[in-house]
Amino acid sequence: MFSISPSARLRTSPFYQATLAEGMTHVTSYNNMLLPTGFGNPEEEYWRIINGASLWDVAVERQVQLLGPDAGRLAQILCPRDLSKCIVGQGKYVALCNHQGMLINDPILLKLADDRYWLSIADSNIWFWAEAIAAERGLNVEVSEPDVSPLAIQGPMAENVIAALFGDWVRDLKYFWFKETKIEGIPVAVARSGWSKQGGFEIYLMDGLKGTPLWNLVREAGKPWGIGPGNPNVHERIESGLLSWGGDTDNQTNPFEVRMGQYVDLDVADDVIGIQALRKIKSQGPKRHQLGIVLEGTEPAEPVFHWLDIMSNGHKIGDMTNIIWSPRLKTNIGFALVSVEAKPGDNVEVVQAGKSIIGKLQTLPFL
Amino acid sequence: MFSISPSARLRTSPFYQATLAEGMTHVTSYNNMLLPTGFGNPEEEYWRIINGASLWDVAVERQVQLLGPDAGRLAQILCPRDLSKCIVGQGKYVALCNHQGMLINDPILLKLADDRYWLSIADSNIWFWAEAIAAERGLNVEVSEPDVSPLAIQGPMAENVIAALFGDWVRDLKYFWFKETKIEGIPVAVARSGWSKQGGFEIYLMDGLKGTPLWNLVREAGKPWGIGPGNPNVHERIESGLLSWGGDTDNQTNPFEVRMGQYVDLDVADDVIGIQALRKIKSQGPKRHQLGIVLEGTEPAEPVFHWLDIMSNGHKIGDMTNIIWSPRLKTNIGFALVSVEAKPGDNVEVVQAGKSIIGKLQTLPFL
Repeated sequence: MFSISPSARLRTSPFYQATLAEGMTHVTSYNNMLLPTGFGNPEEEYWRIINGASLWDVAVERQVQLLGPDAGRLAQILCPRDLSKCIVGQGKYVALCNHQGMLINDPILLKLADDRYWLSIADSNIWFWAEAIAAERGLNVEVSEPDVSPLAIQGPMAENVIAALFGDWVRDLKYFWFKETKIEGIPVAVARSGWSKQGGFEIYLMDGLKGTPLWNLVREAGKPWGIGPGNPNVHERIESGLLSWGGDTDNQTNPFEVRMGQYVDLDVADDVIGIQALRKIKSQGPKRHQLGIVLEGTEPAEPVFHWLDIMSNGHKIGDMTNIIWSPRLKTNIGFALVSVEAKPGDNVEVVQAGKSIIGKLQTLPFL
Repeated sequence: MFSISPSARLRTSPFYQATLAEGMTHVTSYNNMLLPTGFGNPEEEYWRIINGASLWDVAVERQVQLLGPDAGRLAQILCPRDLSKCIVGQGKYVALCNHQGMLINDPILLKLADDRYWLSIADSNIWFWAEAIAAERGLNVEVSEPDVSPLAIQGPMAENVIAALFGDWVRDLKYFWFKETKIEGIPVAVARSGWSKQGGFEIYLMDGLKGTPLWNLVREAGKPWGIGPGNPNVHERIESGLLSWGGDTDNQTNPFEVRMGQYVDLDVADDVIGIQALRKIKSQGPKRHQLGIVLEGTEPAEPVFHWLDIMSNGHKIGDMTNIIWSPRLKTNIGFALVSVEAKPGDNVEVVQAGKSIIGKLQTLPFL
């Protein structure tokens, strides 16, 4: 579509040389870094995630490190989810909200020690946010961006690859749990996680000079399972109903609207940011909710950089926040952020490039 | 180089349809929006800025609006520059710093009313920052992203174009000053500003549905001066010594290192964020400074997504933060963020793709 112009404002990842060598053709930017989004064989890359093992440079999932005596206190102030039972080695999916209860990020929180946490963030600047809150509340905690870069291995064969590399203990790792270890002297944390629903792991590289050696180690270990390059796959993530903060949300989106209510504990302390607003939103009931849409037609839709209007009886009822061809469902699908009055099963129309496409709402995920 | 994959996470501008119609070929992302960076004729686009009038979609220069009784107070708390004499209609270039005195953005502050300010920001999330500070300090001010999208007209002929559109009063507008007005019913603010040193204006569109009509009005008015599409031009901005926050800075950069000391007033009140750290940095003397480098060689350098090491006598003394062919100097140039011990006139070596290139330091700007 368009070429991206080089600039150091969009930084490269420690895996940049490795992804260049793999023949990277497409990118996006995420947390002011380049995120590889294609290697020239979109079909092959998709089916590798569904059936095999796929290797992703997701260094753009930057870590916001909270370090110091008040790290746990700051983590709880930032997250409207009860963290009191979170133990070292455990990760949790959390909603970060502003003081008005609007979702500003949806990271994985990892507890590395009683005085050390990471927020493995989506695409918004949480360093500034966390640093402002820490400084304004006079907390004894240092907020930084440590030298940590996740590499994801996703797909049904991923566990075999990770076990071959690290040992069979990884098979017992629970979802979002992790362990710090080394591989050929390279410091890493291994977590069962990743932005697909096909199973998988993330290796958090803790030495930015070792990107290529780590990539090559995983590549070699994965050979028996046909591992190859891939990326957070927009087709798979939409089929699987995975949220993209900033893509599927706007600056008025609260967690209840986008299926994150289960991660909000309304009885956390009053000093947790946004909790008072969230209690009010919950009691009044959110105005929008997130559903899926299945569109009519057999031609793959053109993906776009913007939302599409969803109409019902001539009135706009919400936005289609992404649109993609589903290789497994063999139809075009996407997410709907629509009025709570719109229900699964309702027929709607989606406007793209001036044309109306007929669609039907349904619950998420699609698969 | 790479293609950019569509996603609503990178939003489009109100001028998107207009830039598509102009044949946009290259983009970057900036404040999670697409910024056009090329229309297929790089040489023509460069010389149009130097000699004529160039039209830029810079909607990515988003506004952080501070509205309410404490808007002025929040503006001053965010900016280590004395704003007490700033009057309505005036803009000022400011350094935003965190509590450690590190530069987190370098916006233009515009005072629209005693209770209404805009920060016309570079590429970092200042909504979150300003909202956190306002909420934590209990200020009576609303922080938002209003429906405002700048369109820049740059080049020596820009003033004629703007005068033809709005009248001769624009010729008396001082640098960074602005005035709210309408053009064919479209609400705008007209400012003498823009990210080039060739002279020019920015029209702040205040109705996102009117992007194409405004673009076409300017395009039509600019015909006598050969106006055409362009963008914040990396060649011109480097020749002119203009800073790119995030490209030429890292998270340890203070304003004194990047020629912004003149915009820091050390005697502002103690509650201004970062001022105590800035006083300390100033008294101890910054460790780095920003110079230019002229490289040997007659082949245009390949622009890159990362910094390049600057070496002197076998030791790294800093980073080359951008590299570009200068069409007017007919050589490769860029910015150096180097130890204060490195001086203009010093010979250095720059490492690109494993090869050393000989260069010489000099003061900025180049032209």
